[in-house]
Amino acid sequence: MTTCDNASPDLDSITKIDQTEGGITAPTGFKAAGVACGIKPSGLDLALIISKDLASAVGVFTTSLAAAAPVIVSRNHLEQSAGHARGIVINSGCANACTGTAGIKTAQIMTEAVAQAISCPVEEVLVASTGVIGVMLDSTTVTTGIATAVKTENSAGHADAARAIMTTDPWPKESAVRVKTPEGTFTIGGMAKGSGMIEPMLATMLAFLTTDAKVSPSLLGRALKEAVDETFNTITVDGECSTNDSVMALANGHSNIRIDKQNYSALVNGLRAVCHELALGIVRGGEGATKLIKILVTGATTKTGAQQTARAIANSPLVKTAIHGGDPNWGRLIAVAGRSGSPMDLEHASVKIGSVVLFSNGSPHDERTKDAARQLQGPTVELEVNVGVGGCEEAIMWTCDLTADYVKINSEYRT
Amino acid sequence: MTTCDNASPDLDSITKIDQTEGGITAPTGFKAAGVACGIKPSGLDLALIISKDLASAVGVFTTSLAAAAPVIVSRNHLEQSAGHARGIVINSGCANACTGTAGIKTAQIMTEAVAQAISCPVEEVLVASTGVIGVMLDSTTVTTGIATAVKTENSAGHADAARAIMTTDPWPKESAVRVKTPEGTFTIGGMAKGSGMIEPMLATMLAFLTTDAKVSPSLLGRALKEAVDETFNTITVDGECSTNDSVMALANGHSNIRIDKQNYSALVNGLRAVCHELALGIVRGGEGATKLIKILVTGATTKTGAQQTARAIANSPLVKTAIHGGDPNWGRLIAVAGRSGSPMDLEHASVKIGSVVLFSNGSPHDERTKDAARQLQGPTVELEVNVGVGGCEEAIMWTCDLTADYVKINSEYRT
Repeated sequence: MTTCDNASPDLDSITKIDQTEGGITAPTGFKAAGVACGIKPSGLDLALIISKDLASAVGVFTTSLAAAAPVIVSRNHLEQSAGHARGIVINSGCANACTGTAGIKTAQIMTEAVAQAISCPVEEVLVASTGVIGVMLDSTTVTTGIATAVKTENSAGHADAARAIMTTDPWPKESAVRVKTPEGTFTIGGMAKGSGMIEPMLATMLAFLTTDAKVSPSLLGRALKEAVDETFNTITVDGECSTNDSVMALANGHSNIRIDKQNYSALVNGLRAVCHELALGIVRGGEGATKLIKILVTGATTKTGAQQTARAIANSPLVKTAIHGGDPNWGRLIAVAGRSGSPMDLEHASVKIGSVVLFSNGSPHDERTKDAARQLQGPTVELEVNVGVGGCEEAIMWTCDLTADYVKINSEYRT
Repeated sequence: MTTCDNASPDLDSITKIDQTEGGITAPTGFKAAGVACGIKPSGLDLALIISKDLASAVGVFTTSLAAAAPVIVSRNHLEQSAGHARGIVINSGCANACTGTAGIKTAQIMTEAVAQAISCPVEEVLVASTGVIGVMLDSTTVTTGIATAVKTENSAGHADAARAIMTTDPWPKESAVRVKTPEGTFTIGGMAKGSGMIEPMLATMLAFLTTDAKVSPSLLGRALKEAVDETFNTITVDGECSTNDSVMALANGHSNIRIDKQNYSALVNGLRAVCHELALGIVRGGEGATKLIKILVTGATTKTGAQQTARAIANSPLVKTAIHGGDPNWGRLIAVAGRSGSPMDLEHASVKIGSVVLFSNGSPHDERTKDAARQLQGPTVELEVNVGVGGCEEAIMWTCDLTADYVKINSEYRT
């Protein structure tokens, strides 16, 4: 048996900020707003994030070849501004995707409206949309909303903004942390929305991060990518990567804590902590979900192999329905691992549900089924598959159960 | 616009045989039986197919690294007999998968019991199982069943056999055709079972084919692979390739029609016709399914690319739930095509639901939504995505809708 020792990063210097004070306005120098402008039949549907001063700005976007208009416009603006922005405008209720040149024009109009209101070049405004694909976004509606949002933005606006970006999300998702470094403390805040069409694949759904750390766009981009790879890119609700997936981060330097090689890991750890909480929030609030499922694949010879197996299990409807039913049906886990395309040695593989080993050395332990069933009662479930090929590589994926409500929500989404 | 001309094979020489006379005993020289021996709580659970004389025998099996005991034993027997067999024994109610060396022993005992009863070498008997993974199959129960089956086998036993291999299948799946060649007529029969854990991927679920054509194992194997690639390998219910997937074919030569280079295509077309009907039956009877969905991807530059896009759409829970809800949500089709990993040009892509074009040249035609919704009312739905990259390659996949009943069935399967 191979003995593996996989270390975790030191996170002692990170303190979580209470939800009520948290979110994207927790770092100094950021204001936000969330307003209702009529894109949705009811409720908040337009959010604005404004930095007092020009911030370093980076984004990771969908890998889809059907990237939506706001994704195209935001990518262009980041290039034109060399990674700087003053604000981000986000609407829910309409994805502005597959809307042709008219859609691009509307996304541009949105950034122009914000730029005019806060007196900055248009390329210093980013834009994101979420909602139904293939429907035109009315530019008058959205610019009227922007005018209201600019008037109401304030340094406690995080909560409204987080609500305004929701579609089928059952609750808003916010997180913020304070990061202590030898040079002092800086703050990171974030908000995100799910909750269907979720399987980021090196892109991700909508999430917005703010920090008052002082950091160059290139270093912020590297840190964001590291954090996203281990958080948003390890979740799946339904294996669907969307046309609008975007994670954007703004760093305005208001804390005067400069990020360099020395304290780079503090920034990464802080971003990872915020992204982790938001990502898990997305899965927990996945469409129809009743359980958060952590899938750990161990014993692989390559990280990629472990990830491939973990992703296949996390997207398996048979695993997701079994967990929903509280059935410790470990055979389905082995079946998925066996078809995932990554190496597995059935003779040395094992399966654990919670702390109960149900299969090891090629043989089932069915006498432990009742014990295992008890481990599936709570809202969070841990599944572990050791693929038995004698390696020490492992991977984690987070998913949720597949329920009749998921089917209901997605059968009725537009009607 | 590229003009494409993709021809279909000539199928004039193939006549479908009525269901009541059809199935695996339609070709001469085959008998079958289906009996209840107590593996399942109730109902038929053991099937037997016997050829009067030694038949050419071939199989295609799961690509899973967790291949079940009967798959391992059947593969070995086909090797030892150089592609010949007298019979196949199949049980439902227990997959005999992930059951270690004890499971292999049980699969061997099953073949020995049949071999002894019909007086042939053990390697001339093949075996298949389907049901729950990771549960031990009781060898006394199953050999008692075999003893009964051997006594009841008859040349009209196809219907009982087709019922005995069912698990969650809503109905038995049988098909048979007569194939006319210049030299005379031969017959092909088949039966299959679904109906969850279905996405064959160069292997397939359980299906059994018989023919009275006279054909060498190597030519039969080639023909079976061709037929399977275009039928069972183009269906998916839930994207799950199982531990037990097997398609086996027996050819006993009783028709005296010898298959050679000249009439090889008649055999392939006949096998394809039977496999096509069985495959579509599996999808139509997929767990919880209410609609059969045909997905046609056109305009691709490579066959593999077209297949990858078609498969991604066929496995998309968002597409499958939209169709279930009768919602012509074409944006989801474009979103999946865009993330599938295969080329797409959004500017030239188009989407058709039934005969209604809902998206073309980068722009939506939302005014046709009601027309498109009407095309989703019936039990069979056709979706077409042209990926717009100017090629003539295309691919078809068959899937079913995703319903609350799929969730219900798979949450409660063992409990």
